[in-house]
Amino acid sequence: MNNLLILIQCKDSVGLVTNITRVLAQHKLNIVAMREFVDETENKFFTRIACSGIIAYNSVLEQELVDVLPADASVRLVTQTEKNIAVLVTKEFHCLADLLVRTHFKTLGAIVKCVIGNHPTLQEFAEKLGVPFFYVDHENKSRDEFEQEISQLLTNYELDYIVLAKFMRILSPEFIEHYPNKIINIHHSFLPAFIGASPYKQAFDRGVKIIGATAHFVTNNLDEGPIISQQTIHVNHTLNAKQMAVAGREIEKAVLSKALEQVLEDRVFISGNKTIVFE
Amino acid sequence: MNNLLILIQCKDSVGLVTNITRVLAQHKLNIVAMREFVDETENKFFTRIACSGIIAYNSVLEQELVDVLPADASVRLVTQTEKNIAVLVTKEFHCLADLLVRTHFKTLGAIVKCVIGNHPTLQEFAEKLGVPFFYVDHENKSRDEFEQEISQLLTNYELDYIVLAKFMRILSPEFIEHYPNKIINIHHSFLPAFIGASPYKQAFDRGVKIIGATAHFVTNNLDEGPIISQQTIHVNHTLNAKQMAVAGREIEKAVLSKALEQVLEDRVFISGNKTIVFE
Amino acid sequence: MNNLLILIQCKDSVGLVTNITRVLAQHKLNIVAMREFVDETENKFFTRIACSGIIAYNSVLEQELVDVLPADASVRLVTQTEKNIAVLVTKEFHCLADLLVRTHFKTLGAIVKCVIGNHPTLQEFAEKLGVPFFYVDHENKSRDEFEQEISQLLTNYELDYIVLAKFMRILSPEFIEHYPNKIINIHHSFLPAFIGASPYKQAFDRGVKIIGATAHFVTNNLDEGPIISQQTIHVNHTLNAKQMAVAGREIEKAVLSKALEQVLEDRVFISGNKTIVFE
Amino acid sequence: MNNLLILIQCKDSVGLVTNITRVLAQHKLNIVAMREFVDETENKFFTRIACSGIIAYNSVLEQELVDVLPADASVRLVTQTEKNIAVLVTKEFHCLADLLVRTHFKTLGAIVKCVIGNHPTLQEFAEKLGVPFFYVDHENKSRDEFEQEISQLLTNYELDYIVLAKFMRILSPEFIEHYPNKIINIHHSFLPAFIGASPYKQAFDRGVKIIGATAHFVTNNLDEGPIISQQTIHVNHTLNAKQMAVAGREIEKAVLSKALEQVLEDRVFISGNKTIVFE
Repeated sequence: MNNLLILIQCKDSVGLVTNITRVLAQHKLNIVAMREFVDETENKFFTRIACSGIIAYNSVLEQELVDVLPADASVRLVTQTEKNIAVLVTKEFHCLADLLVRTHFKTLGAIVKCVIGNHPTLQEFAEKLGVPFFYVDHENKSRDEFEQEISQLLTNYELDYIVLAKFMRILSPEFIEHYPNKIINIHHSFLPAFIGASPYKQAFDRGVKIIGATAHFVTNNLDEGPIISQQTIHVNHTLNAKQMAVAGREIEKAVLSKALEQVLEDRVFISGNKTIVFE
Repeated sequence: MNNLLILIQCKDSVGLVTNITRVLAQHKLNIVAMREFVDETENKFFTRIACSGIIAYNSVLEQELVDVLPADASVRLVTQTEKNIAVLVTKEFHCLADLLVRTHFKTLGAIVKCVIGNHPTLQEFAEKLGVPFFYVDHENKSRDEFEQEISQLLTNYELDYIVLAKFMRILSPEFIEHYPNKIINIHHSFLPAFIGASPYKQAFDRGVKIIGATAHFVTNNLDEGPIISQQTIHVNHTLNAKQMAVAGREIEKAVLSKALEQVLEDRVFISGNKTIVFE
Repeated sequence: MNNLLILIQCKDSVGLVTNITRVLAQHKLNIVAMREFVDETENKFFTRIACSGIIAYNSVLEQELVDVLPADASVRLVTQTEKNIAVLVTKEFHCLADLLVRTHFKTLGAIVKCVIGNHPTLQEFAEKLGVPFFYVDHENKSRDEFEQEISQLLTNYELDYIVLAKFMRILSPEFIEHYPNKIINIHHSFLPAFIGASPYKQAFDRGVKIIGATAHFVTNNLDEGPIISQQTIHVNHTLNAKQMAVAGREIEKAVLSKALEQVLEDRVFISGNKTIVFE
Repeated sequence: MNNLLILIQCKDSVGLVTNITRVLAQHKLNIVAMREFVDETENKFFTRIACSGIIAYNSVLEQELVDVLPADASVRLVTQTEKNIAVLVTKEFHCLADLLVRTHFKTLGAIVKCVIGNHPTLQEFAEKLGVPFFYVDHENKSRDEFEQEISQLLTNYELDYIVLAKFMRILSPEFIEHYPNKIINIHHSFLPAFIGASPYKQAFDRGVKIIGATAHFVTNNLDEGPIISQQTIHVNHTLNAKQMAVAGREIEKAVLSKALEQVLEDRVFISGNKTIVFE
């Protein structure tokens, strides 16, 4: 008995669910859980189907699904295996530590293959937990050189996702385009408020009563990629900007790990600049 | 173009989704949104399918669905019309007022046909908003007589649900059995904590840091019916029992209206002593 | 036995609490609850002291406090009486209804003296609850004329606060300056995100996973006055802009009533463009 | 310039704040932040005063405070130094890992002097982070012997608090009495709901829509000591008991670390079976 995940997105049209489920029935696959969504703005159909059953050849099933779906359909069959990620960091420990603890105790749903830092601060911790750490200094070199060093390191691994866990350098469009829909960032504000640098300073100056954190896919436009998950907490007048940053750590790591969990379980689709998250 | 809601629950078996969607396809009904759930403990299948399309006879469709489903299947076809409810109250205004304001501005998804109170406190308010109020005193009579007076009033309306909006009398099993899965109560604690009387007093005495509210279907066992919705808020040492009760009002009315919204949109199934809520 | 509230703000200096409490002790006033805060950015001291005891002349106590405080000190003595407010609305009912229900059942801590609407939509409801409603059309007249009509109506009442409960017209700086720190607005986003028009449309377009509401004092800069209270709720891909607006109503009214409660209990101080809220 | 924390609890009476602040003023101590609370049920006064200034002898100040306070007064002067804790665990990693990561990066406000486990599961992780781990098997010995082994280990350290981070053995009243108000437990439910074993199983069986976690001081009565902090999250019908336990981990570790932060900053007083938490 295999567990099979079927991920489909295509132009919406009448009868899609019937067409899909008929193919599954012919293979005697039982639908354990099925979620679907029609984005009416984009006229697109999305579905995530968890099946149980035995199939000899995934490629046959995939072709049969393609045959009953619109021409633009993307069909992915996933047999649940652990994914591989790399993590980019600067100095702050809380998001990285959260990920490394989870991967250490095998509850992340992914293996952290390596950590790359533009500061050596977190090297000792990563190595204590047995994860390779590469220190790539960004000083005295162009962004291009800096990014090529990183790319070079990343090519050593078959990576599903690259996680920016409080990585404080802005990546170039060229770098990002190289990993479409594969880079996930944690931003320390409830986007779109406080885009850019020092969001807690901005939050303090504005006198907000809530602060937030946002996990999103990275696209060319800084802090403007599709949002995966957000969370907020209450603050008050007694917290200065630094204390807000400390309080914010708790939701930053919570939101990043929640977003990663959803992405790693293939619950997240991208539609335009938005995400569909089948929780 | 009708909007049709199809609600099915039955024993789980392979191919249910295929069987159901094939029937829908034959009627050229388009699935707008579909949710399904298999309760593995009870081996039961539940689905809620929103369709668009034209069908001549609901009864034909219903029969065709029954024909492809297990023998125990319950199939309900709903064309979205407003439902009718009655509200039972005692003295507290906040839940009733919230419902009457929503019904007044036609955002409740139901018409409050009448309010019945065992105190006259809320009569003036209900009548100002044009809703009939019946004062049924519980004193100097048996519970039986009291409940028969209420039942008598309720028979004047075709009611879908009876809402206990801070109704402070305990209803008899006989009364409750008369309205199976139709009575919804708001309890002023996060059940199962603080079952019974004076939950805020109990919460204060225990020194809890959160208080809650629970909307649930009423069954024979007091405060033990299937839970529909719950919500909590933080409290602290500065609040006494009375102040907790005041703070609790905000979530009591929020939870009750949320639960009602879900019930009135036919998003709630009952499975044993639990609910399935397709949000 | 009177209950007396003492509100002080002044330049910070050593010994302020001692100086203040010594004066209170001389009058045999017992401190029931005391909150203080030093805004280190602004070097300002704020305190709210609830006392019990008997004092013959508030003016004597006030002068004695002034005498032991820095020259810039503002001292206010409040004996808890209900405050008066006016509410400005357009078409949406939820915030107004929440306030009118609370005032009807005497739990708002204020009397709504009148409602002014630039549409007649809510007239019937306000009048049903016995609150005067004035319809001031904004069409076919200048903003000046429009605002003068409103001002004229407001002069009929001794008002403590003016509440903009989803009032959809932008008020002029001249109007606002007339009521310094007295106008409270509910904005339908978690400011500073989505300033200006159609925040739910903006939120939908951005694909956020949380939406929010903000209650703030109104200053010359639109949506940029001191924030009193904020709240957020989770949304997901299934909600369109209109459905987000419907979901948002629940927190809009909750935040506005929470903010008002705090303001009416004299728990809110303004410091620069921020608030200090002694909860 | 020292930072000094003054913690006082005593019978309530008129003029306490004045008496206290007068003493502080005589020492030219400036009050940076002051919180006070009167528990009217117990007629007790509590205050936490953060001062800045220079004092030669704490003992003199302490005596002067005692002299102006009721006979039952407890006065504690704290100069902020890191505290020492021991952590007891069984098999679950999440709470321990959270504490060890924080102590590793010096953000806990305490040093974890040792970890004691009745299973060896977490030994490797603790030792990787340089924290001594002692495996004390509970099998083939009496509870008395088991607890004496633990006590013996604990005597090696000057401990401020003992943290039960998902320690799955019930400690005897004798053990607990040995560490009055010094043992902090994390219970995996929103107490008082689901006291005792398998709270997630109980929560699943009851069909609740929220689950919670509670950090509390341990007293003789299991799960009934003074509550420090609680948190809840929403769950739904799709989660089985095991999945609820996984979801619950996130709030268990969050609540425990929040409670510890408050305790370690001396913000928590115990009054009867409740806590006062000056946030």
